Amino acid sequence: MAKTLRVGMIGCRFMGRAHSNAWRQAPRFFPLKANVELNTICGRHAANVQTARLQLGWQKATTDWREIVESPLIDIVDIVTPTHCHAEMAIAAAQNGKHVLCEKPLAMSVKQAEAMLAAAQKSKVVHMVCHNYRRIPAIALAKKIIGEGDLGRIYHFRARYAQDRLADPEFPLDWRLQKATSGSGVHSDINSHIIDLARHLAGEFKEVCGLVHTFVPERPLVETPAKSSPAAKAARKMGKVDVPDSAAFLGWLDNGVLANLEATRYALGRKNHIEIEINGSRGSLYFDFEDMNRLKFYNGEDPRDRRGFHDILVTERDGVHPYVGHWWPPGHGLGYEHTFIHVVADLVNACAEGKAVAPTFEDGLKNQRVLAAVEESSQKGRWVKL
Amino acid sequence: MAKTLRVGMIGCRFMGRAHSNAWRQAPRFFPLKANVELNTICGRHAANVQTARLQLGWQKATTDWREIVESPLIDIVDIVTPTHCHAEMAIAAAQNGKHVLCEKPLAMSVKQAEAMLAAAQKSKVVHMVCHNYRRIPAIALAKKIIGEGDLGRIYHFRARYAQDRLADPEFPLDWRLQKATSGSGVHSDINSHIIDLARHLAGEFKEVCGLVHTFVPERPLVETPAKSSPAAKAARKMGKVDVPDSAAFLGWLDNGVLANLEATRYALGRKNHIEIEINGSRGSLYFDFEDMNRLKFYNGEDPRDRRGFHDILVTERDGVHPYVGHWWPPGHGLGYEHTFIHVVADLVNACAEGKAVAPTFEDGLKNQRVLAAVEESSQKGRWVKL
Amino acid sequence: MAKTLRVGMIGCRFMGRAHSNAWRQAPRFFPLKANVELNTICGRHAANVQTARLQLGWQKATTDWREIVESPLIDIVDIVTPTHCHAEMAIAAAQNGKHVLCEKPLAMSVKQAEAMLAAAQKSKVVHMVCHNYRRIPAIALAKKIIGEGDLGRIYHFRARYAQDRLADPEFPLDWRLQKATSGSGVHSDINSHIIDLARHLAGEFKEVCGLVHTFVPERPLVETPAKSSPAAKAARKMGKVDVPDSAAFLGWLDNGVLANLEATRYALGRKNHIEIEINGSRGSLYFDFEDMNRLKFYNGEDPRDRRGFHDILVTERDGVHPYVGHWWPPGHGLGYEHTFIHVVADLVNACAEGKAVAPTFEDGLKNQRVLAAVEESSQKGRWVKL
Amino acid sequence: MAKTLRVGMIGCRFMGRAHSNAWRQAPRFFPLKANVELNTICGRHAANVQTARLQLGWQKATTDWREIVESPLIDIVDIVTPTHCHAEMAIAAAQNGKHVLCEKPLAMSVKQAEAMLAAAQKSKVVHMVCHNYRRIPAIALAKKIIGEGDLGRIYHFRARYAQDRLADPEFPLDWRLQKATSGSGVHSDINSHIIDLARHLAGEFKEVCGLVHTFVPERPLVETPAKSSPAAKAARKMGKVDVPDSAAFLGWLDNGVLANLEATRYALGRKNHIEIEINGSRGSLYFDFEDMNRLKFYNGEDPRDRRGFHDILVTERDGVHPYVGHWWPPGHGLGYEHTFIHVVADLVNACAEGKAVAPTFEDGLKNQRVLAAVEESSQKGRWVKL
Repeated sequence: MAKTLRVGMIGCRFMGRAHSNAWRQAPRFFPLKANVELNTICGRHAANVQTARLQLGWQKATTDWREIVESPLIDIVDIVTPTHCHAEMAIAAAQNGKHVLCEKPLAMSVKQAEAMLAAAQKSKVVHMVCHNYRRIPAIALAKKIIGEGDLGRIYHFRARYAQDRLADPEFPLDWRLQKATSGSGVHSDINSHIIDLARHLAGEFKEVCGLVHTFVPERPLVETPAKSSPAAKAARKMGKVDVPDSAAFLGWLDNGVLANLEATRYALGRKNHIEIEINGSRGSLYFDFEDMNRLKFYNGEDPRDRRGFHDILVTERDGVHPYVGHWWPPGHGLGYEHTFIHVVADLVNACAEGKAVAPTFEDGLKNQRVLAAVEESSQKGRWVKL
Repeated sequence: MAKTLRVGMIGCRFMGRAHSNAWRQAPRFFPLKANVELNTICGRHAANVQTARLQLGWQKATTDWREIVESPLIDIVDIVTPTHCHAEMAIAAAQNGKHVLCEKPLAMSVKQAEAMLAAAQKSKVVHMVCHNYRRIPAIALAKKIIGEGDLGRIYHFRARYAQDRLADPEFPLDWRLQKATSGSGVHSDINSHIIDLARHLAGEFKEVCGLVHTFVPERPLVETPAKSSPAAKAARKMGKVDVPDSAAFLGWLDNGVLANLEATRYALGRKNHIEIEINGSRGSLYFDFEDMNRLKFYNGEDPRDRRGFHDILVTERDGVHPYVGHWWPPGHGLGYEHTFIHVVADLVNACAEGKAVAPTFEDGLKNQRVLAAVEESSQKGRWVKL
Repeated sequence: MAKTLRVGMIGCRFMGRAHSNAWRQAPRFFPLKANVELNTICGRHAANVQTARLQLGWQKATTDWREIVESPLIDIVDIVTPTHCHAEMAIAAAQNGKHVLCEKPLAMSVKQAEAMLAAAQKSKVVHMVCHNYRRIPAIALAKKIIGEGDLGRIYHFRARYAQDRLADPEFPLDWRLQKATSGSGVHSDINSHIIDLARHLAGEFKEVCGLVHTFVPERPLVETPAKSSPAAKAARKMGKVDVPDSAAFLGWLDNGVLANLEATRYALGRKNHIEIEINGSRGSLYFDFEDMNRLKFYNGEDPRDRRGFHDILVTERDGVHPYVGHWWPPGHGLGYEHTFIHVVADLVNACAEGKAVAPTFEDGLKNQRVLAAVEESSQKGRWVKL
Repeated sequence: MAKTLRVGMIGCRFMGRAHSNAWRQAPRFFPLKANVELNTICGRHAANVQTARLQLGWQKATTDWREIVESPLIDIVDIVTPTHCHAEMAIAAAQNGKHVLCEKPLAMSVKQAEAMLAAAQKSKVVHMVCHNYRRIPAIALAKKIIGEGDLGRIYHFRARYAQDRLADPEFPLDWRLQKATSGSGVHSDINSHIIDLARHLAGEFKEVCGLVHTFVPERPLVETPAKSSPAAKAARKMGKVDVPDSAAFLGWLDNGVLANLEATRYALGRKNHIEIEINGSRGSLYFDFEDMNRLKFYNGEDPRDRRGFHDILVTERDGVHPYVGHWWPPGHGLGYEHTFIHVVADLVNACAEGKAVAPTFEDGLKNQRVLAAVEESSQKGRWVKL
């Protein structure tokens, strides 16, 4: 009889919904090596967390996260709180011998990330940072194609994470736009995702040069009703955006790859446009999250008159394409939430077997170092070595 | 306190997985007007149905479908068996006062469909046929745009449902390729879906002319291992495909719309390509299920130099786009399974309020009439009036 | 020293511009086997044809087409007049021993086309009908891929020629909308193009069933100024559209291919959308003229996890892709007019060598038979054999 | 009677073909304010230039470019030689009172460009640098949309000019890969094009930071036959690539626009991929030269549920879309060569009226300053002000 892993999740908002769904769904679709129990959910407000508990399918609720990390019942702690809480919670969880899944970015600083990794390593727990996009089937296929050498020597890695919700200066200040809670705004929030994908697919950063920037430095504290009078508009309270709301940088990876990354929430029409292009001496890859079930692969070894990006619908079963065999027939695509289910499925198996599962806290730490180096470069106006 | 609707599902294979998921997920994401209980699942083989029960999240399992339709506990019967079982089960369910959700095609014949509708109407139960594609957000948006008159007078409705799994003559005979179980093969299996979308979006069929066809009339009874010897290949048992494996027809809808529909499983590279184009005097729409989160809308009233199909990512919240507000942020797409969740969500609300919910058995019946008319046209080689 | 072929062109409007350009440009870009001289252009109105002569680069002008077909100087007669003039002119030209290039559709009727072919054959001249789309590089590549067997057994040929200029009921009556001049409207004007491509790429028609239709049976005789008063609108003269303005049919080709063709000028947003899809047992092809430099090829023999339509930019030199080696570097696309230049280049070489060049008048005749069969089918409401 | 402008062209290879075609074709399609005479073509080798004269349609040929710039007959000098020749020729032409069209990049250095501009201004001739991509209809439409304020405040300008012919290390050294003739390789050759488009569409550069790079520093002097033996391969002569073969930089434009530009010939599968995205507070634009007849426009003012990039086929006549009214009907696209025809048409009209026409040598000079600043930044590893 398979072991049961009991999960405690700290946080109950957007990411709480996505993670709860993953914990519920993973055992329904994947033959996991352990059972999963959604044991306890934690939120700051008693009423909210009770509602969330019911809605999201947890057995118990608490407003004290220490209950979770200290409970002898809990095997895995899942941290989906704002960034400034990660380090304390993850370290406490690790110190109590819990496996830890932590939302990205791992920490507020390199120093925090180092401490988190050290704690996890010391306790020998399984530790994972939730860069869920690695487990999009198309990205997993990209990894496989690269691993098989089918791109040859890689020249370019190019990525852009573009959204548009800040394009409207009326979009209110939230925790992601404040240093105290988010670390470094759009830079740490979404640039970290494509930094992770660069490292995952193309190599480690050696040097970076770029900038972090704030296009709109002041925003209303709460959403302004669309039909507000000018007087009401003038009277409302504004708050300072003290983090970047965009970032762009060039970099060299350790194997001579030229990287070009950009993250912004000012690209009207781009909703969750994680666009990646990788060019090598034998082939190229292109991906866009807004068409997440597709991967485009240019095979430089195809017959010359038939060369062109293969528009691969990454939905083939029977082990042909990663993960999708557990879902639906070919052409019946997956959505955003599935990436989390794949994270949880792989994490559960890793915990069951006591094995490491990437991206680990070490990946989170390396990511944090790139984030910091870009910020340093932005400040100094020059290249910064890692 | 909200009422609880208890569900019994008959069938436990592919569609059983999709429906079970919908029953589990709908209450997690939609504020339903009743609670849902996955009460009983029914399958033919005791062992299989027990496995399915556990895997899919049902409380009880049975091998006798009559237990479900007769149980005083059950409120809704969900029928996901092969087509030849639908009529008997649905009629029995209705006669026992159960609401019924039935997979498509509704029946084996017009006559069966008539009896099913009559039974449902007589019992005043809620009846619904699972043409899940109506509840793709992009299709729901198409319906809204058409309803607001933004296509003007419709000239053309054009659809193709194309897959490729039969392109390989080695693909074995399954229940979908046999008359006794499927009714009319690809015609009833997938052509029925685009007939439903034509009726839903553009109007009722008045006349049709076309064909049903079988490209490969004989197939192996079981999957042939890829490396079989010629001798083994020669020795294996073959079975007759006695249903169409492709279909194509022209038709006139009641409002002067020219319809062109085609369904095939011989289109290599097309995995679940439900392609629809609608052209009117003021605008056009284009949809392809393989990019299910998008709808393309040409607005003939845009300024002349800015006209072009709007490539709408149908993922906006706050009531902007249908259904998606209950899911994830803009640009974070949905997948195949969500269409079933939307079906279940709307059905549960309809049952809770005792209201009808389309597509009803009447839609299923009208669909069946179109299917039959196309078959008659194919036989007679001429136009057939409905 | 290469021979010089002297060309006389009858007609000087839209197609006259396209053909004149082709005659001027072909020798600049292709190493032709004969020199080309733009000798005489013919139009009905003396002033217009003089303007055209200067603008389009012809040495002489005439208003009497017999001068051209009877002139001992002329080697090639190029007929770009409305359809009802083709037969008389082409027959006279052939009888005078001229090679003939004739715009499509070849004729007003099968009978005319038969007479034209007979005259051309009797005089042993080179005869060609200007189905220019065969010489789009992407279509020429499609032909090559099919010829090499890379689609295997073909199941489906599907094409749609869609434009939108008639979607506006205010678009005035022109010669293409009147039986006396055009033959059968949209059916002969653009449906004939995709019939030609079906025959060129997939096989001969054996049987057809379909319809020709007129969505808007009455149109203003001249363009109505956009800001006309209702009174002015009511007062203007209207004329009858006595030809089809749309057509759709199914057909069987001689090798068991199911064909589905549709032509319309009521597809808002589709400007010159010649869309073709061909599905075979080993591969599929997709083409859309609005992206005329691309061909999509699905290779069923690619490794399973890398299968997807190859998005081929058909612009490779060094003989890799047809025709384009004579133009620009890879990725520097061609336009509409180049198709005519390719027609002329191949025709000149054929005339220089006294060889046949497809599509010949025989192709034009076969096309005419399909057109007629579809019209008969439309009238009789049933399948018609060819 | 219109004046005739006599043209002398220096250079007779790739660009000579493109420009000759433009000089021949412009008067055929555009109602120019002066006649054009292709008077003299100049090349270094007597035999080659005679062949070119005949093939390309010039009246006279010479091997001495001074004959052209000094001839009293010549009105316009068109310079299509390698970059290192531009300055001397353009200055001599201007000093002789000739209007000058010069291929890009304008010069080998800022100093040369300054001298060229000074000479042209002093002589009051019309001067133009051939950044032909400004006159793609889609780019001209983009300019119009921006000019009308429909993007609002611009946040991002992002461009990539990607080709793939250097991805093969066997591609031989040519003049574009040598400092003495090309200036700065891929940087000046193609990066200059997107720098021009950034300036044209979004604003002047204030500061840049980036790099120029050489991925493959040594290449064979002549093309190596594909089937060469290893010995033959080892024995062949190699030459040093002493210019960048790739470049990437970030920049700030004077109105607060963040620019990100990249140019490379190492992007397998990208043939002439000039990709541009511009994001503003009210709208976004996207363009890719490989689909040169399309422009994508996201209108932030569309009704919320219908927002999506308008996929504009930029082929509408009647003045709706720039330039295309002189060509073919809607949907009948243009190709690469048309951009040069538009350049020539506008230049001829400017010369006829003695007006300036952008991009002038001043644009060429500003471009050169950006090129130089990026090189300086690359060397110093930090931001450089302009």
